Amino acid sequence: MSTRVDGRADDELRPIKITRNWLDHPAGSVLIEFGRTRVLCAASASEGVPRWRKGSGLGWVTAEYAMLPAATNTRSDRESVRGRIGGRTHEISRLIGRSLRAVIDYKALGENTIQIDCDVLQADGGTRTAAVTGAYIALADACATLGVTQALTGSVAAISVGIVDGVPRLDLPYVEDVRAETDMNVVMTGEGRFVEVQGTAEGVAFDRAELDALLALAEKGCADLTRMQQEALDS
Amino acid sequence: MSTRVDGRADDELRPIKITRNWLDHPAGSVLIEFGRTRVLCAASASEGVPRWRKGSGLGWVTAEYAMLPAATNTRSDRESVRGRIGGRTHEISRLIGRSLRAVIDYKALGENTIQIDCDVLQADGGTRTAAVTGAYIALADACATLGVTQALTGSVAAISVGIVDGVPRLDLPYVEDVRAETDMNVVMTGEGRFVEVQGTAEGVAFDRAELDALLALAEKGCADLTRMQQEALDS
Amino acid sequence: MSTRVDGRADDELRPIKITRNWLDHPAGSVLIEFGRTRVLCAASASEGVPRWRKGSGLGWVTAEYAMLPAATNTRSDRESVRGRIGGRTHEISRLIGRSLRAVIDYKALGENTIQIDCDVLQADGGTRTAAVTGAYIALADACATLGVTQALTGSVAAISVGIVDGVPRLDLPYVEDVRAETDMNVVMTGEGRFVEVQGTAEGVAFDRAELDALLALAEKGCADLTRMQQEALDS
Amino acid sequence: MSTRVDGRADDELRPIKITRNWLDHPAGSVLIEFGRTRVLCAASASEGVPRWRKGSGLGWVTAEYAMLPAATNTRSDRESVRGRIGGRTHEISRLIGRSLRAVIDYKALGENTIQIDCDVLQADGGTRTAAVTGAYIALADACATLGVTQALTGSVAAISVGIVDGVPRLDLPYVEDVRAETDMNVVMTGEGRFVEVQGTAEGVAFDRAELDALLALAEKGCADLTRMQQEALDS
Amino acid sequence: MSTRVDGRADDELRPIKITRNWLDHPAGSVLIEFGRTRVLCAASASEGVPRWRKGSGLGWVTAEYAMLPAATNTRSDRESVRGRIGGRTHEISRLIGRSLRAVIDYKALGENTIQIDCDVLQADGGTRTAAVTGAYIALADACATLGVTQALTGSVAAISVGIVDGVPRLDLPYVEDVRAETDMNVVMTGEGRFVEVQGTAEGVAFDRAELDALLALAEKGCADLTRMQQEALDS
Amino acid sequence: MSTRVDGRADDELRPIKITRNWLDHPAGSVLIEFGRTRVLCAASASEGVPRWRKGSGLGWVTAEYAMLPAATNTRSDRESVRGRIGGRTHEISRLIGRSLRAVIDYKALGENTIQIDCDVLQADGGTRTAAVTGAYIALADACATLGVTQALTGSVAAISVGIVDGVPRLDLPYVEDVRAETDMNVVMTGEGRFVEVQGTAEGVAFDRAELDALLALAEKGCADLTRMQQEALDS
Repeated sequence: MSTRVDGRADDELRPIKITRNWLDHPAGSVLIEFGRTRVLCAASASEGVPRWRKGSGLGWVTAEYAMLPAATNTRSDRESVRGRIGGRTHEISRLIGRSLRAVIDYKALGENTIQIDCDVLQADGGTRTAAVTGAYIALADACATLGVTQALTGSVAAISVGIVDGVPRLDLPYVEDVRAETDMNVVMTGEGRFVEVQGTAEGVAFDRAELDALLALAEKGCADLTRMQQEALDS
Repeated sequence: MSTRVDGRADDELRPIKITRNWLDHPAGSVLIEFGRTRVLCAASASEGVPRWRKGSGLGWVTAEYAMLPAATNTRSDRESVRGRIGGRTHEISRLIGRSLRAVIDYKALGENTIQIDCDVLQADGGTRTAAVTGAYIALADACATLGVTQALTGSVAAISVGIVDGVPRLDLPYVEDVRAETDMNVVMTGEGRFVEVQGTAEGVAFDRAELDALLALAEKGCADLTRMQQEALDS
Repeated sequence: MSTRVDGRADDELRPIKITRNWLDHPAGSVLIEFGRTRVLCAASASEGVPRWRKGSGLGWVTAEYAMLPAATNTRSDRESVRGRIGGRTHEISRLIGRSLRAVIDYKALGENTIQIDCDVLQADGGTRTAAVTGAYIALADACATLGVTQALTGSVAAISVGIVDGVPRLDLPYVEDVRAETDMNVVMTGEGRFVEVQGTAEGVAFDRAELDALLALAEKGCADLTRMQQEALDS
Repeated sequence: MSTRVDGRADDELRPIKITRNWLDHPAGSVLIEFGRTRVLCAASASEGVPRWRKGSGLGWVTAEYAMLPAATNTRSDRESVRGRIGGRTHEISRLIGRSLRAVIDYKALGENTIQIDCDVLQADGGTRTAAVTGAYIALADACATLGVTQALTGSVAAISVGIVDGVPRLDLPYVEDVRAETDMNVVMTGEGRFVEVQGTAEGVAFDRAELDALLALAEKGCADLTRMQQEALDS
Repeated sequence: MSTRVDGRADDELRPIKITRNWLDHPAGSVLIEFGRTRVLCAASASEGVPRWRKGSGLGWVTAEYAMLPAATNTRSDRESVRGRIGGRTHEISRLIGRSLRAVIDYKALGENTIQIDCDVLQADGGTRTAAVTGAYIALADACATLGVTQALTGSVAAISVGIVDGVPRLDLPYVEDVRAETDMNVVMTGEGRFVEVQGTAEGVAFDRAELDALLALAEKGCADLTRMQQEALDS
Repeated sequence: MSTRVDGRADDELRPIKITRNWLDHPAGSVLIEFGRTRVLCAASASEGVPRWRKGSGLGWVTAEYAMLPAATNTRSDRESVRGRIGGRTHEISRLIGRSLRAVIDYKALGENTIQIDCDVLQADGGTRTAAVTGAYIALADACATLGVTQALTGSVAAISVGIVDGVPRLDLPYVEDVRAETDMNVVMTGEGRFVEVQGTAEGVAFDRAELDALLALAEKGCADLTRMQQEALDS
């Protein structure tokens, strides 16, 4: 018997909605929604690679994450106006980039660069995991556009899990996230292997049993997301 | 007999689509589309005013414009990453702010601030005019949310006009914009008065007759947009 | 019967003073004065063009505008100290550059760059129009120094006009500028065609008749300035 | 039979050296060495808290991490000269701050701020884990100096683990770190609970069994470090 | 028999020209010329002092130095555009500020701030010494405007000296400055005491005899400048 | 009979301690201590020179100075976090660079760059002079590592002198420095010639006799330091 605000079971995802080709210009683009969280993921392809990689025959994939000012409950300042990118933004951009690079064969990509942009249009918890999950689809579309589908060695999806009021739960919205004692983001391949595990005790430290429970929830959530990604790409 | 790429008459707007309340958090929000140009306008309300205005009993309205990296034909750099805002961005942000302030009664607004964010999700010419036109609706909704509808003294809308291959045309998409000899952005009130007139000779300078033709086109375009704004607000 | 603070007729320019070759180093330089407004315009020539233009056979002209801290009534902060350029500065720099490029034949200029610097030493309204007007002369001198006078396809001058207490007036000093209901800056070629028209309603929006009256004033003012530019260049 | 470059067992720490009070000015300071990795940790105490926390009766602990240019194999640029802090630096600073705050009772600290600085004088892998481990001791000394030892609710230590050539190993030096397929940093309390778990697949994704092996190694390493921290504080 | 390019004796100043009140707005302003070096010095007065000095009853004097882009032989980049102030600019701003503060009685100034701006309009060597010398006069005028002439406890002037081709020389223009083996800037009070001595070996190090010769030249130069300052202030 | 806080004679250095090769990575490194002032000097060598020097056959030496936040009595902000380098830091970095370049034969160095980093770990007055003195030794070690000892044409050392309570004193610690009426930093070669003389009146201006007394003290101090540098390099 769930006590979650939106009536979900503890191991249930929010409604996930994936809209491919939301934009006309980039090689791949997806509007992904995890409940009220809404992230626009674009994959722009360009010939050539950064200077330090030239002549290597290898491609490159990189990512930038950002949040629109009005995406949050109370408006947040624009980082371009502040003139500097915050630590959180840096951290998430790096996480997305690493996650996608885990399923890229640079050699098969050739000396091309795919630049991923994940812009949060509306935030309600789980923006980074929605970003990774949507970005993978945009990336897959960009690889298809470039004619290098073999550069993708697998798929990746990501989900947040946390312990709220002592109960491990999947896919936390903002109201649960702020109350969570422990918060974990997990990125997994479609084959069920781990790419990133980032767990943080917000209040009291967590023990091994709690960690195991969270990992199990995340495995289920990522498997569900993998299925939805596949359906979106097949449609 | 039109020779426009999309078959429009020279004095015809692109299909305009206005979606109110596209976001959950801000006091007002609109997704506005001028053809393939798509701008998300949000109006966030907060109590209090900037320091230099405190104790005056007057409110404040300000605006920021930005473009997502993947909004354009070829990806553009993120201004937050470059660490500085470009001149074009500054210029348009200031234009939007001035345009909206032209229909605000600061006293009726009271010591409240409305912050407008116009984020271009997709660009195909006319982003600044779509931004002004959409921002007005978000502003009207925010005033209603605040219970100060009397703070709005009128409406504003904006449209681009230009001379392409010697012919004055309304509402230029990107392909026409880059070929225009003269490019003009006009902001008008719902009553048909001018708020901003910004004309620029891209190639050869223009004469008075051309200027008059452009102004006439803009008057028609803004009148059409005013009607659509009203319909959107009435719905 | 004028009611202007300095006794001028409504369609009369302030005393204009043009001193060529005020500096020893740049290819062209002018100290231009519109009444108490004093702008130092320098045109520095260098071989080569920006990277994106290399090998095109075409030249480039660009401009930067700035204001000394003590130029204004109350000292303003130095933009280099603040570490960022304000929107107004950006906007005016871009206006000056566009205005001058309107009379440049890039091919005749060859792969050379002319960099215009307009530094306001003292501000009393109309700094951007004085800058354009003076910069044209510095540019002409720089073209002569480079031996490419044929790169200039015409001349440009600029003037401000505005409606003050309901009366259209030419060349507003600061005291009139702050009270103007409408403020317009107009850049014209020596042949009387328009390069830029930038009109802004500061208070109430303006109607078409007012716009026409302002344009007529500006045409007269620019014609006067064109004559003075020619005299200065002939001397 | 170990094959590690320095002859260590796979579950063995490098020689750890802790020098308390290495500096004269701050309330607490430690030079900590994990093999050739050398981090100077300082805890500066000051009265008062950041603005957003004033009047709450609660204290604050924050951290900054940085690396001297000559700390690395080949000199790295100084972030102050580049004018911006890199993503990695931001990420680690935030990790250290969160880790220390996990064992702080803000109420017992009172409205005081402890600012932790972790400066890497020499880097040979594991700088962030050495930083957390040393910073805890500096923090403990600062609490003692302030007379608020009860503000510390426990201890924290951190260690890196990774899979190198298929073998899980503890406390990776640089040469192992660059070759690791999976890299994990774990922060634990003295009581053996988890504060942070950050695992990243550098090459292929890792499975649950590998994750479990790494966690077990980390638990041993953190327990060893906790003992050394206690000895240092008792001396 | 002088071998100086401009026929001066080795201990002779360039023609010095001082124009008071060159600007209308600031409390004091001077255009000072050392030969072709031309520096505009403005002293802006404002009530109040920086936060760290509030309530002390003491005033404050600070200075900023900058160079217009076209002031130099080949155009230099604008620091506001680069987004950061160079080391040389910082260094000279600090020198000017310290020099002026040496003759200020903060108590007599009261809680007022005088902000000095020294902008180099044209550079031909010795810009910092011209700046100090001119700034003193602007400062004196500002003190008079404020009605606190007693806040000035003396006068300051500055001059450059150097060893060129083995010969000690006074007031080096650019062509001598670049060839100087040793370059020294000296700031002195009107009473002949030293405020700043900054000597630098550009090529070979200098010995005590050379240092003494340079100091003697500087003493003469500063005495001459002191006289000219006094004349300017008396006129 | 000395009245100095630490019992030193007025012309006596603090205890000087020089530890070579304190770091493993750079070509040369020294931890130098002047009493409680502790500066880590590293000399990193790399092939190639800055762009403006390429193909000249000449090498380059440059320096950066910085202070750890906890080095000072009360913690100072980190310049990388503030996003800009302060004037003092710029000034000292430039001083160190010039001082070292005074004893470098660029031709003998070949097209190599030596980058000096001087990081103040603890500050108690005289950090810039300790930095110059230590940096010379790191530079000498780097030249030896590169096999270009002939690139060093001499040695440099630096010391601070000042007038405290009317008495000229050598090598001021912080408590004396803040009370000094005059403060001077002197850089000399091992042969007793001057490289830099930077004297500043903090309170009242100083006369020629005081200047001479300070120079004499500095000559003695630099000679002592030269001897210690030689001993360190011989060991």
